[in-house]
Amino acid sequence: MTLGIDIGGTTIKMGVIDEARGAVLAESSFVTPQTGAWNAASEIARHVRDLKSAYPEIDRMGVGVPGAMNRDRSLVRYPPNLLGWNEEPLKKYLEEALPEFKSIEVDNDAKVAALAEAKLGSGRGLSHFLLVTLGTGVGGAIYSTEGTFEGIYRGASGGAGEFGHTSIDFNGPKCNCGSRGCIEAYIGQQYLSDRAKKKLIDNPSIASSLRAEENELTPKIIAMAMNSGDAFAKSVFEEAGMLLGAALANAANLLDIHVFIIGGGVAEAGAVLFDQARATLHERVLANLRPIVEIRKAQFGNQAGMIGAMLLVTEANK
Amino acid sequence: MTLGIDIGGTTIKMGVIDEARGAVLAESSFVTPQTGAWNAASEIARHVRDLKSAYPEIDRMGVGVPGAMNRDRSLVRYPPNLLGWNEEPLKKYLEEALPEFKSIEVDNDAKVAALAEAKLGSGRGLSHFLLVTLGTGVGGAIYSTEGTFEGIYRGASGGAGEFGHTSIDFNGPKCNCGSRGCIEAYIGQQYLSDRAKKKLIDNPSIASSLRAEENELTPKIIAMAMNSGDAFAKSVFEEAGMLLGAALANAANLLDIHVFIIGGGVAEAGAVLFDQARATLHERVLANLRPIVEIRKAQFGNQAGMIGAMLLVTEANK
Repeated sequence: MTLGIDIGGTTIKMGVIDEARGAVLAESSFVTPQTGAWNAASEIARHVRDLKSAYPEIDRMGVGVPGAMNRDRSLVRYPPNLLGWNEEPLKKYLEEALPEFKSIEVDNDAKVAALAEAKLGSGRGLSHFLLVTLGTGVGGAIYSTEGTFEGIYRGASGGAGEFGHTSIDFNGPKCNCGSRGCIEAYIGQQYLSDRAKKKLIDNPSIASSLRAEENELTPKIIAMAMNSGDAFAKSVFEEAGMLLGAALANAANLLDIHVFIIGGGVAEAGAVLFDQARATLHERVLANLRPIVEIRKAQFGNQAGMIGAMLLVTEANK
Repeated sequence: MTLGIDIGGTTIKMGVIDEARGAVLAESSFVTPQTGAWNAASEIARHVRDLKSAYPEIDRMGVGVPGAMNRDRSLVRYPPNLLGWNEEPLKKYLEEALPEFKSIEVDNDAKVAALAEAKLGSGRGLSHFLLVTLGTGVGGAIYSTEGTFEGIYRGASGGAGEFGHTSIDFNGPKCNCGSRGCIEAYIGQQYLSDRAKKKLIDNPSIASSLRAEENELTPKIIAMAMNSGDAFAKSVFEEAGMLLGAALANAANLLDIHVFIIGGGVAEAGAVLFDQARATLHERVLANLRPIVEIRKAQFGNQAGMIGAMLLVTEANK
């Protein structure tokens, strides 16, 4: 049994996980402290001690964080959704707060989720795949087998996989990262909502139940409207699927990746998004890849972080 | 001493190369037979025997081809610029035609050129880089170091590195590959020439010495005009650099690659192209990569193919 911990922007989730099966035996969660990495580590340690009263033998933990890591994974770098974090030695903080632990591993959350899919989920048996997470941001992680290497592809400084910041239109909408036309700037949750709202405002003739929504048009609300037969809501996910497919074709061509595993909240929109992404990917990828490329749904939903974090430990102690 | 052979669409170049220094000791070249792979292999064998009269001890050769390879590199797949080639067992043909050779290796030409840059050129000492070749097409090859692996990144079926077919505008100009907005569809030699010509025709007010050109506006002709002070010619390479920089930013973000090595004929346009590509790359890449990314000129010009092909043999027999 190993602890898997998933640090999110709002919640930290913690699970006692059976390593062999990837089954979550016990789970707890608490609000992410917005007061920096040291306090987050202390809070984690306090909750770990609670869990240890029931599972005293646990002395290994893996942690996924929503930020980039340096190459040896000792530092978390400026995670955009964690207040008060700069360049933080999270692993060291946790080792200091939990000296009885024999193995503590930390990695980026998308890379951790890719590990879960590779070892226990939709990526089992694949030599190469790209995991894409459609949430607040659009995350990514590349799983590769090259010569004697098999695992998460990290790149020159450990940050590889930023699929969300590959642009599909150099003149496209401005992205938070400073560039234009990044796929995140179209289908990241906030961008998707804002685009849908703007389209309704700019086109008064569109009939849609979403006009009645006074709040933000979250992907969930748009999906509900789509499932009730709202044609405009459907068109929002069709467009999202088309744009995603175009971005996937670029990754397929550059990396010769055949399988794309899509997870995250926006992926819950389901068949409309997936079918359109598939159609556009097939249309745009190089001819020799056309019969081969496929898009799969991630197997693990919001447990991917915990399960993948647990696997970090398994991988590190192999 | 090893033979390095570079099969091009019009010429096959062959060099006797000192392995340790990468120095070409003797060289010959002949017209590429446009009658299929078996005839090309026979022609190569004939010229190899000629060279062997002066260098009888040579029994190893590497070959670069302008086409995709399958994963174990036994087959060349549908090289677009070699007439009569489909899926061809070139390595087997060469082994049959030259049974006295102990080691024959074949690989894609961009991958071979990347090997030359990695071992003896502008990529020496780098853990990761992307080689981009700007010629008739826009080629690419990814050099990576991940865990125990170091070498050319091949991907799931051996075709990774197709940078030329990453799109920077999903609504952009139609590319020969069937997609839209591929960087090759802007700055591949023919596309670059056609775009320049069309701009002159569409904008009669532009003053340019290139209007006097009756033939195709090859990159060479445009570069000559630029070097004579033609502002329009300069703008052609500025735009090419901007577009290239946008495409490089995508690769930098996805792969966490810090160094881009640019080779090929169009790269000879020089500083204007390189400076603009650098400026755009810096502007568009993720903030953490901004201080790190760089663009270098490839060290090997038209000898990259021969020298890299020779290195295939060194690598295979390590």
